[in-house]
Amino acid sequence: MSALPSTHRQVLLRLRPHGIPEAGHFEVVTARVPSPKEGEFLVRNEFLSVDPAMRGWVNAAANYSDPVPIGGVMRSFAAGVVVASRHSGYSEGDQVMGLLGWQEHALSDGSDIRRKVTERDLPLSLSLGVLGLNGVTAYFALNEIGEPKAAETVVVSTAAGSVGSAVGQIARIAGCRTVGIAGGAKKVRLCTDEFGFDQAVDYKSPSFEEALLRACPDGVDVYYDNTGGSISDAVLRRINRHARIVVCGTASVASWDPWPTGPRVERHLLNKMARMQGFLVWDYEHRYEEAVSRLAAWIRDGRLRYREEILDGIENAPGSIASLYRGENTGKRLIRLVHA
Amino acid sequence: MSALPSTHRQVLLRLRPHGIPEAGHFEVVTARVPSPKEGEFLVRNEFLSVDPAMRGWVNAAANYSDPVPIGGVMRSFAAGVVVASRHSGYSEGDQVMGLLGWQEHALSDGSDIRRKVTERDLPLSLSLGVLGLNGVTAYFALNEIGEPKAAETVVVSTAAGSVGSAVGQIARIAGCRTVGIAGGAKKVRLCTDEFGFDQAVDYKSPSFEEALLRACPDGVDVYYDNTGGSISDAVLRRINRHARIVVCGTASVASWDPWPTGPRVERHLLNKMARMQGFLVWDYEHRYEEAVSRLAAWIRDGRLRYREEILDGIENAPGSIASLYRGENTGKRLIRLVHA
Repeated sequence: MSALPSTHRQVLLRLRPHGIPEAGHFEVVTARVPSPKEGEFLVRNEFLSVDPAMRGWVNAAANYSDPVPIGGVMRSFAAGVVVASRHSGYSEGDQVMGLLGWQEHALSDGSDIRRKVTERDLPLSLSLGVLGLNGVTAYFALNEIGEPKAAETVVVSTAAGSVGSAVGQIARIAGCRTVGIAGGAKKVRLCTDEFGFDQAVDYKSPSFEEALLRACPDGVDVYYDNTGGSISDAVLRRINRHARIVVCGTASVASWDPWPTGPRVERHLLNKMARMQGFLVWDYEHRYEEAVSRLAAWIRDGRLRYREEILDGIENAPGSIASLYRGENTGKRLIRLVHA
Repeated sequence: MSALPSTHRQVLLRLRPHGIPEAGHFEVVTARVPSPKEGEFLVRNEFLSVDPAMRGWVNAAANYSDPVPIGGVMRSFAAGVVVASRHSGYSEGDQVMGLLGWQEHALSDGSDIRRKVTERDLPLSLSLGVLGLNGVTAYFALNEIGEPKAAETVVVSTAAGSVGSAVGQIARIAGCRTVGIAGGAKKVRLCTDEFGFDQAVDYKSPSFEEALLRACPDGVDVYYDNTGGSISDAVLRRINRHARIVVCGTASVASWDPWPTGPRVERHLLNKMARMQGFLVWDYEHRYEEAVSRLAAWIRDGRLRYREEILDGIENAPGSIASLYRGENTGKRLIRLVHA
């Protein structure tokens, strides 16, 4: 066993946010590096993930997992290397990805590990992005809920983001016409120039609705919704009969407490015989490796591109969710840990 | 050919309603009974149908079919008997059901006929209700979109109505626990006493939400929505993970112009991995006879009950849609024509 540091840094939740968690809701502390007991192993985290869903993990409002307790290590996905093991299933040098938290080292009994990372020819960081939940989400939500068919129009919101950019490219591989929605000229250009969307429109533009209409002359067959709110309202007005709306995120809505209002969808869904369905990747956990192997093959043959935006040092973690919601990132946001 | 009358009565659309069509939007006129040309036949209508969907057929707002023109015979389903035919596919005495309109006789070339009614052991009127679009809608929407599984809780709005009462009974046949929502004590009793719902709650009661909660101790797995609006909002708050919401009607919302607002559903659908899908029976036209034969078998063996509310005489047609929306009927509303 290599020599391990005696202390490491962790990011704890100090205050419960109402809405989007800001830097001030967290605190970076120094703690002892724990030693694995029988059946445990120690992971040196190399990359911490920053995901929109983390907002829901700290809010008190009912959500799809229990909230992170005050004083607890912030829940997050992370990828790292096993540096000490007393667990028969994990050996030193194994690369793993899982819910290891915003901390430099994580003790695990394996229950919080999502997978061993076996694509050793590709960067480990991809296991948190295009080969992680972002890519796997895009793959299953688009294919299983969106059911894209060749020549259909697929509209994607937050299209320059880590999920959206993968959705657009997978839809193009399926033969669809793809229209990305993103905020600002820079991201709109990314959609077309880097991620191959046929068209992209800027939701921040005053002419957004007209641009969307022009970009979708045959209506919208699949809407992959990462934003909710007024952006989605505009897309919904354009859906075709039998459209499928994949609800994957609600990034544009700052708070769901109190529950915000908007145009009622029921009659519109009825007239269009359309479907609106929420997607969480947990439903597809048993098929995770199927998605990763397809996505990895597309990356290797150049058909699936991705962007990462890497911040160096755990001290960047506390403010990173809020800036994600401000739309400041272009690419999958990661914290790279700098180990002594 | 039996002697035919020279004149008959028709109900014409005189004014375009904004919202629910009232008696004053229509006019009853006397017209000549047409004679069939080669390839045509004449139907003596016995029953005219009164359906909530007819609101959409006369409104100018975009809907799933072109609006009835001003001065045109009101579009409706009707069932009758062929009384004269120069069409090789139809003979005198055939019973037919189709879009024959609010009139005492209808000339047809067959294109507006939905089916020949072959259940001669059952009343012809059933072809407009439990063996017509109401029953067929209930059958396919519940089974194909709702996908009820044994022991699940199925909630149905307008549960004493012609679609809702069939939905509840089909769900019980599938082994589900059924909860009906209806307006007023009389209809609530109908739900449990006549249609076999396990529980029924009154949406007009001030304690509606608490009663709904008590009636659904294990949450809601399938919500068959015939109302939209605040009734649906209350049910949606109780849905379980992977719930299916079948949007089949929006009877509780008087007007969709301007588009009404309500609680946004996207995050709720996401957290619950739930599906909300609009259903129109046209998608299942090719499987119509499958549903009718199943429904007829359940009627014959006493497992599927129905109610009809029959008004005698075409002069009752003009006001019949508005009173349907006032919830005054208990059972499938029909106009029985009194022929000389």
